[in-house]
Amino acid sequence: MRGFGAVHELDCLLCHRRFEPGSAAYTCPDCGDEGILDVKYDYAKIQFDPLSPRRRKEASLWRYLPLLPLDKIPPLSLNVGWTPLYRYPGGGFEGSKGGCKLFIKDDSRNPTASLKDRASAIGVGRALIEGAERIVCASTGNAASSVAGLAANAGVPTAILVPETIPQAKLAQLLIFGARVIRVRQGYHEAYRMSLELSRRFGWYNRNCAYNPYLVEGKKTVSLEIAEQLDWSAPDLVFVPLGDGCILSGVRKGFHDLVELGVLSREPRLVGVQAKGCAPLVKAFLENRECQPCEPNTLADSIAVPLPRNRLKATAALRSSKGTMLAVSDEEILSAMRRLGRELGVFAEPAGATAFAGALRWAREGRLSGAETAVAIVTGSGLKDVAAALQAVEETPVVQDFAQVVELLAE
Amino acid sequence: MRGFGAVHELDCLLCHRRFEPGSAAYTCPDCGDEGILDVKYDYAKIQFDPLSPRRRKEASLWRYLPLLPLDKIPPLSLNVGWTPLYRYPGGGFEGSKGGCKLFIKDDSRNPTASLKDRASAIGVGRALIEGAERIVCASTGNAASSVAGLAANAGVPTAILVPETIPQAKLAQLLIFGARVIRVRQGYHEAYRMSLELSRRFGWYNRNCAYNPYLVEGKKTVSLEIAEQLDWSAPDLVFVPLGDGCILSGVRKGFHDLVELGVLSREPRLVGVQAKGCAPLVKAFLENRECQPCEPNTLADSIAVPLPRNRLKATAALRSSKGTMLAVSDEEILSAMRRLGRELGVFAEPAGATAFAGALRWAREGRLSGAETAVAIVTGSGLKDVAAALQAVEETPVVQDFAQVVELLAE
Repeated sequence: MRGFGAVHELDCLLCHRRFEPGSAAYTCPDCGDEGILDVKYDYAKIQFDPLSPRRRKEASLWRYLPLLPLDKIPPLSLNVGWTPLYRYPGGGFEGSKGGCKLFIKDDSRNPTASLKDRASAIGVGRALIEGAERIVCASTGNAASSVAGLAANAGVPTAILVPETIPQAKLAQLLIFGARVIRVRQGYHEAYRMSLELSRRFGWYNRNCAYNPYLVEGKKTVSLEIAEQLDWSAPDLVFVPLGDGCILSGVRKGFHDLVELGVLSREPRLVGVQAKGCAPLVKAFLENRECQPCEPNTLADSIAVPLPRNRLKATAALRSSKGTMLAVSDEEILSAMRRLGRELGVFAEPAGATAFAGALRWAREGRLSGAETAVAIVTGSGLKDVAAALQAVEETPVVQDFAQVVELLAE
Repeated sequence: MRGFGAVHELDCLLCHRRFEPGSAAYTCPDCGDEGILDVKYDYAKIQFDPLSPRRRKEASLWRYLPLLPLDKIPPLSLNVGWTPLYRYPGGGFEGSKGGCKLFIKDDSRNPTASLKDRASAIGVGRALIEGAERIVCASTGNAASSVAGLAANAGVPTAILVPETIPQAKLAQLLIFGARVIRVRQGYHEAYRMSLELSRRFGWYNRNCAYNPYLVEGKKTVSLEIAEQLDWSAPDLVFVPLGDGCILSGVRKGFHDLVELGVLSREPRLVGVQAKGCAPLVKAFLENRECQPCEPNTLADSIAVPLPRNRLKATAALRSSKGTMLAVSDEEILSAMRRLGRELGVFAEPAGATAFAGALRWAREGRLSGAETAVAIVTGSGLKDVAAALQAVEETPVVQDFAQVVELLAE
């Protein structure tokens, strides 16, 4: 197997057995599905010039090709990544000691409106190299619509397993992209299991981020961009929403790569944010014990994962970054959605506003110091879950005559 | 009043009386609300270097600042414009004689997911210069959510009048952006009238594209980008969806500017596309008679305008480009949505897919010649109208066991 770029080997997170790229299909054969592999690079072989104008012409995640598990840019015309980083203007960044700078990384601006496009771009690219007949994926929604859109763009058929309760917008996206969609009554956990079974039985390419080790490598590009957009410096803190734990793992990997390459001198502290109604990893992390599955009860459906699949990688990422975790309530998430909208003009879905809700909580608790730079990642667009957004706002009046309009606006 | 860039004067489309920029608030005082003004530039004074690297660093519509009615880039952090232009890969571009190239300009990638952000960026920029206390807008949805998002970003309050039947997603966007929203029982026409009345009575800045002459100048940037993305050449044909007629007017203006500046040698032919269920301008244009209001009956809500407000400017634009018009059925629109999704991975709302539906019809009728280059503009994201998208696709099965999955995928 060729085409892995500078990938040196794959390291099992459980037994630390190492594999040649391409020799292990997805997870460690000794440890099974839980033996998630970590992609290791030979950094000495990577030629990466942060200031190269040629590289910077590429307004997408492909500007980081030397750090990705591909030899060349795949034939995808949808442009993924290189999303905006906005300074959060809210004067009322309550509780922060002075002028802490908070930035919002708006990954809702990706082609299918979520950060998942970064992983799908790598997944579809690798599926093309491997000549996959089909791409299979289980997802709470965003990963599914993402791989469906990018696979459509590349002309690769898909099979997508989603929970029966997937929000309509995400379902509509999938179907418009021509994906073969099957809703699974038992929910995400069973959909996930079935997707692995399909890959094993039919050899279809699996785009599950907690199974296929290369996908986290796509997600890491969000950190490469943040560092570049901050003129190749590391923020002090990065707030990341946490469902399966793959985004957090990717965020850490990006900063780690840049430290290994000598582009940055340190990694930021990561703060993983879960919704209170589904925070199994927060409890496990803070109490330093095994993660126990929970019964999800939150409107942040994209991160409502009862037992985070990539918890080992995420926990390792948090510990190595001296990071921590916290859980925010649905009320805090709705408030964060309103603030992103009203103060910045960014419309996030509940899970997409969760990291920002965590940053607000952090500030409110006085944990931000004035000199710090923090980033909160918005992972998906609010247009994907309009019902949730409508919970965040008030009813609008209906009028028939101008006097009523004047009266209402005078209020 | 300063800050109008290279704007020389405003020309009334009805009586051709000319005004200094800033001397007429919106429309011609002699002709009233129907006397829409056209912005005229002193092209000799414009310094515009198509190849300037400094200009090209700006990955937004501000790369065309010398051609816009502003002296400097307004303080907006949301980046508008510089959206992707994709080659349409569909092999089955039925009926086209040979290798006609069709490109899709994906304006759903703007911050609030529609082309309207281009106009709103100019509107909010000018409202800031004029020190407006509030921005008022009447809209079928996209213009409203657009101005709400950009005004939130700039910290300017809004008053938004929408039809009672506005789709939920567009309403949710508005409310999340903190707009003061009023739904008008009688629909868009009355909402529009009320918005003008509010501007007159309270001096609030009006962001209605068929009233405020500067907004079309924002919309024209879509053409400036198309020309630049085609290495400063003009396509042969540009397909444009047509509701009020403002986008078409803007599309023409952009190409016209480039011809005036000597960057292009000719303008493309424009094809205005309406939905059959609301095609008042198609009938009027083809039969060369006065436009008669119609009763809208189409799922393309964003262009369901009974009497196009900017029909004069749009008709003039069509005639000067030797263009024409056509109407497509809702079935053609749904089919165009599916094809954009399945063959390109682009999810358009019905109105957003209407221009592409027109291009498909044009090809089917054998009107495309092999040597031609055509562009269809996708004006808004399908996430804004999920209900319509669900009409374009089939029901998805729900399963409980793996055997069912295998059976379904074998079909």
